[in-house]
Parts: sequence; C-alpha cells; structure tokens
Amino acid sequence: MKKVVQLRPSRSGEASSPDADSRRVVLLGATGSIGRSTVEIINGANGAFSVAAVAGGSDAKALAAVAIELGAEFAALADPSGYADLKAALSGTAIEAAAGPEAVIEAALRPADIVVGAIAGAAGVAPTFAALAAGRIIALANKECLVCAGPAFMRQAAASGTRLLPVDSEHNAIFQAMGDAELSSVEMITLTASGGPFRTWSVEAIAAATPEQALAHPNWSMGPKVTIDSAGLMNKGLEVIEAHYLFGIETARLDVLVHAQSVVHGLVAFSDGSVSAGLAAPDMKVPIAHCLSHPRRLVTKARRLDLAAIGQLTFERPDFNRFPALRVALDALRAGRGLPTVLNAANEIAVEAFLKRRISFHEIAKIVEQACEAALSDGVAREPETIDEALAIDFAVRERTRARLPGTAAAS
Amino acid sequence: MKKVVQLRPSRSGEASSPDADSRRVVLLGATGSIGRSTVEIINGANGAFSVAAVAGGSDAKALAAVAIELGAEFAALADPSGYADLKAALSGTAIEAAAGPEAVIEAALRPADIVVGAIAGAAGVAPTFAALAAGRIIALANKECLVCAGPAFMRQAAASGTRLLPVDSEHNAIFQAMGDAELSSVEMITLTASGGPFRTWSVEAIAAATPEQALAHPNWSMGPKVTIDSAGLMNKGLEVIEAHYLFGIETARLDVLVHAQSVVHGLVAFSDGSVSAGLAAPDMKVPIAHCLSHPRRLVTKARRLDLAAIGQLTFERPDFNRFPALRVALDALRAGRGLPTVLNAANEIAVEAFLKRRISFHEIAKIVEQACEAALSDGVAREPETIDEALAIDFAVRERTRARLPGTAAAS
Repeated sequence: MKKVVQLRPSRSGEASSPDADSRRVVLLGATGSIGRSTVEIINGANGAFSVAAVAGGSDAKALAAVAIELGAEFAALADPSGYADLKAALSGTAIEAAAGPEAVIEAALRPADIVVGAIAGAAGVAPTFAALAAGRIIALANKECLVCAGPAFMRQAAASGTRLLPVDSEHNAIFQAMGDAELSSVEMITLTASGGPFRTWSVEAIAAATPEQALAHPNWSMGPKVTIDSAGLMNKGLEVIEAHYLFGIETARLDVLVHAQSVVHGLVAFSDGSVSAGLAAPDMKVPIAHCLSHPRRLVTKARRLDLAAIGQLTFERPDFNRFPALRVALDALRAGRGLPTVLNAANEIAVEAFLKRRISFHEIAKIVEQACEAALSDGVAREPETIDEALAIDFAVRERTRARLPGTAAAS
Repeated sequence: MKKVVQLRPSRSGEASSPDADSRRVVLLGATGSIGRSTVEIINGANGAFSVAAVAGGSDAKALAAVAIELGAEFAALADPSGYADLKAALSGTAIEAAAGPEAVIEAALRPADIVVGAIAGAAGVAPTFAALAAGRIIALANKECLVCAGPAFMRQAAASGTRLLPVDSEHNAIFQAMGDAELSSVEMITLTASGGPFRTWSVEAIAAATPEQALAHPNWSMGPKVTIDSAGLMNKGLEVIEAHYLFGIETARLDVLVHAQSVVHGLVAFSDGSVSAGLAAPDMKVPIAHCLSHPRRLVTKARRLDLAAIGQLTFERPDFNRFPALRVALDALRAGRGLPTVLNAANEIAVEAFLKRRISFHEIAKIVEQACEAALSDGVAREPETIDEALAIDFAVRERTRARLPGTAAAS
C-alpha cells in the first residue's frame, strides 16, 4: 500500500526488507540528538521505513543532509530565514523544501504511520499536537508536550483514538514493563535517576557548581538544558510529571530511585509482589527503535547490556536536601492545576540564566519554587485545558521569571 | 457458573469476593513447601478461588488439615497405607477421602480451571500429565515434568490447547518479562542463580563440603534435594533445561548469571537492545499468586522488593570450574536426545547418596556426567516421546546409577 524506500538494497539487487509494507515515518527534530539516533535506526533497518517528511530548527544544511540521507519527500525548516539555504542544499533532489512554523506543521501532517516528536522545548508542542490531532501514533521525545500540556495531549490522544509511545528511556522502560497490565494491578511505578555528576557531592559543593561541572554527565550524552536538569534531578521531577500523564497514574504511585549505572531505567511493581523492570545500555537508539517498530522489534546495532561486565547495580533513595529541585517538581505535581506548566517554564528560564552564569546552581530550584508559589497566589495556576492555554501560561511565566532574575532591572 | 467457596466472608456477612466467579483450583502437592505457600495465597484471596481437590504424599494428618483449611471437596493421599488415617482425620466433614496413586490422578482430573502441579520428583509426572491431557491450565512447580519428559509435556500442552504457567521464580520472571513477544525477537534469555552457599568458596572447599554446609542456602528456604542442587548449580542447569522446553528456545539463546541477592530472577534481551527483567523479593508466594490469577493479578501480602534497602545487586558469570554440575547439565541439554532425562535421574540418586554421606559433594557432578556418558554409549539416550518412555529411562538410569555408587557391591 505504501511506497517502499529501499534504504539499503541487498547486494544481489533484491529487496532485503523484512517488511513488505514499510512503515512511513515523519521525523520532527531531525537534526538534534534524538533525530540523529533516529536516522541511524532508520538507516540500519533495511528498508523497514520510508520517510515522508523531516523537520529541523535553523540549520538548513544539516536538515538537507538528513533529508537526502533518508530519502525524505519533504523537508521543513522552522526558521523562515533559512529557506534559501535549504532550497539550495536540496537542489537537484526531488525533496520539497519549505520553511517557517507552518511548514513544520505541514511536515507533521504528512501522511505517516508514526511521527517522531523530537523537537526540543516549547517549539515542539504545536507540531506534535497537530500530528496527534490528525490521529498519528507519536513517538514522543519532547518533554514539554506532557509537562506543559499533559491534560490536553492525553485528552487529544484518546479523542483521536491513537497513542503516545514514549522515547524517553525511563518511560519507554516502564511502557515495556507494563505490557498490557491493568493500571489497577500496579502498586508503584519507579523511575530511576543516574544522580548525575553531583550524586556524591555535598550540598555546599552542589550550590557552587559551575556550568562546566553540571554539564559533565557521567552516563548520557544529551543537550545542555536536559543535562543541567539532570544534574539537579529536576529532570527526574519533569519525568515523573510526564509519567503521571502518560500512564494516567496518580503521584502517590510514582517513585524515584537513584541508580548510578543508568541501566535499569524503570520498574513497575504489581499488587502480587512481582516487579517488571526495563533495562538497556544507556543508548537512546534502544527506545527509539522500540517505538518505531512497536509492537514488533527491530534488530539494532545499539549497545548491548552486559550485566556481568557492569558487575554491580546500586540503588538509593534520592536526597531531597541536596537535590531540592526534585522536591519542588513533585510538589508542583501534587499541587496539580497549572503548576507543572509553571514549573517547566520557570525552570527553562532559570537553567538558561545558570548557563549564562547569571545565577548559581542552587538558585535554579529556588527560582522555580518561587514561580510556583507566585502562580498559586494569582490566577496563573489554573489547569490549562488546551495547548493554547498551556502555551499562554508558559509564555507569561517565562516573562515573569525572566523579569525577576537577579540583576534584572525589574527584579529590584 | 461455579460454586463460590467463600473462604473469608466479610464481617457484614456480605460476599467480599472481588471475583463473582471464583477460580476452581486443584492443588497437587498440598503438604509441601509450594503447597503451603499456595494455601496462604488462596486463603488471602478473599474467595477468589474454590478448591476442587488436594493431593499429598504420605502425611495423612497434614493433608486432612489442608483440605479442611481450604474447604476442598476431595483429598487424595498418594500412600495407600494412609487411607484410614486420612478418613479418620476428615470424619465429620463433607470432604471425600481416597488414597493411592489412582486417587492422586483422580484429584488431578477433578473439574478445575487450574491445577497446581507441586508434587516433588518423578511422582509428580503422571498426575500432572493427566491434568494437562485433560486440558487443564497447569501452574507447574515440579521440575521433573519438563526435565525428564519435556518434549512429551510440551507436545501434550499444544495438543490439548492449554498451557503450562511456570511457578519456579526464574521461569515465572521470564514468562512475565516475555509478555506476548515473538520468540524471533528474543536475543537471549538469562536465568539468574544465587550462587548458593558456596558462591565464594574455593574448588577444594566445595569438594569437601558437608550436607549441613550445602543445605545452608543463603536466600531461599526449599526442600533438601533442590537446596543441594542449588549449592552445586545443578539446579540452574535443570532450570535451563526446563526453560528450553517451556519457552521453546534453543540452548544458544539461554544464559546463566550468578546474582547473589536473588531478586532479579530472569531477564529477556530483545533484538532491539531492550531488556525486560522479572524481579521480586525471594518469596515463592509471588510467582504462585501470579500463576493462580493469570492474566489478572491478585493483591498479596507477599514480601515486597525494596531496592533502596538492598542497596546493590551484583552479577557475575558462573564459574564452571568450581561448579562443574552446571557445565554437565548444559552439555546434556546440548547433546539433546534423552540426556536431560538421564541427567535428572542420575542426579537424584547422587544427591540422595550425598545426603546419606556415601559420596562427597564433588562426586555428584562426576556421577551424573558418567551416567550421561554411559547413556550416550548405549541405547538409553533416545529422546523419550511419551512420559512412559521418559519414566522408563528415569527408572533404568536410577537403578544403574545406584548400582554404581561407591561402596555398592555391583560398583566394584
């Protein structure tokens, strides 16, 4: 039924695809870290996928290269000023080029079996939601969709009769561990946290940490924002919020364990005492491959887990004293309403300020907590029912948080 | 449709069963360790189960007590000489009593939704097979059924359109971790071994171990035979053989890891790099509850897993030099044909001789290996197609192994 793009014809010239009808993919966020890993998976899948569209942010050349590598039909750049560069880089190919936010939405809506939502930050919300509303299965790698606008996303998924498959390693592990279990049989869902570079640091040392120190994550290679989030465990708080919406489970049944080796990513404890865990070497290609081929399994070249080589796995309770950001995030989830949206927006501004050396590391959690408190005392804390409402709260909180940063005129 | 035995009426006198139609259970091996744990699960399940029949070996009083406790309809004692005692112990109740091997078969065939096959040793083979042939779902806790007569059991399960649910913690964990995955997507199935009491001992120390030392298992409370098997890792070899038949997977995709804490019981590695693991505190009530209520989940009071309290989990490759029994078992599985049957029979005799202090610990593996070699050089190694053929090999190998034990007249 669908055009098979034979990505890797076998040497004999015959089709070597294990799948006669290849799965059609849209890749939003093609030039980022998740995007690059997705390209590797698709390229290694022997024609199991064809690529309807790719979308990127502002790097026209990188997007064109990905589009050509994947044999995509359509390439959309979010930054309208890059249109000429994209067009030039795609000249001589049959790939359509377009630029601007509407072009990214158009990419999201190209007919496909699965849309990889890997655009980082708030920019990913609208195109991912558009694809969801069009009934696409979403392989979701963008945290903001659920943290900022979880209720709207989950409601839309149900209304569209489709689902969100989690690419985040923790949520993917939990998704796999859940199987088709009924939620009523789940006693506890546990997300693990590596503990980041400051796992063994004192509270004073963490407070004074530099951006370089916070960016030195021991296990995962990720973008700067999420790496800073990981260093303070705010990332785990955001992931607990995601898990709450994604699995439809209340905060009391969500737990966090620090697990320095990052190979057990998530656990589901059942009412009979059984626990199912999702493990993998820390390689994002594993959950990406899982989502792309779900419910089947690809054969990947992703790193394999070797427990005997690792030797030991450690588990400890998170220390809220040294990592207040996790407490602040869990408090926001417990408070509910619009607090997760507020938390996420304030955190982005605080992390940005930390990376620009305008605030110290321990001020990140303080600023986020203050933003949550401020939102509770005015009307901003209402639960957003639509993504427009969520993005409006997001915008307002960013503005206010930015204005209140130390050294900002309005802050005094 | 079925009579609900209200095991624990609520104080208000209303039925408190969560399940209007209770599941009908036959419990074979009611007085052993698995049997006792099964009774606890059934008693705690608030009327979710009714008990059609219980069967025991030779302890008439214990069997009568279990039958009364569970409100069973029928109690069968394998030992015919215990009939009068059983009858007397059940006088004044409506529970039917019978004794002898045929009575156990009758218990196995009483109409039921699930039959717990927990009779230890070769005595469990015929009644469990009878229940399987009658189309019952079997919660299988007897190793011999699959090790001694795996092909016959799996063929009969397919022919009867039913299935074997594994009660052994490792196989149950693997069963849960597999979910509904296709076998073609499974890269490796790993069973963990605690390493037993001799995990850190030298080869010389293990060779000279006494029965008391071998019986001191660090994690599990089990019968003497399986505890001795665990001390030498023969138990893990038998379990790999079981897994081979149960999951229909070849030896090359079966692996063993030593994991001293016994909380990760089994792992399934998939072709995409994902690994699903089954965990639980070392408490047999967990897998028993899982099998009894599958595919639903009971709420049990079984011990809960607390990874933060345990702190660390260790994994190491098994040492075939110190634990030759594991190598002997895997060799037998690789050799195929009737070798698993031979291995199992010879091992029972060798363990019995060790417990009677007739042979040293390191002679167990030697005797088993010699039995396998002898079987290969004559006609005994043919794969048994029926349980009768399997039991005939079992009998012949026991006789021969017993005759060849050191200190036996025929051995010189």
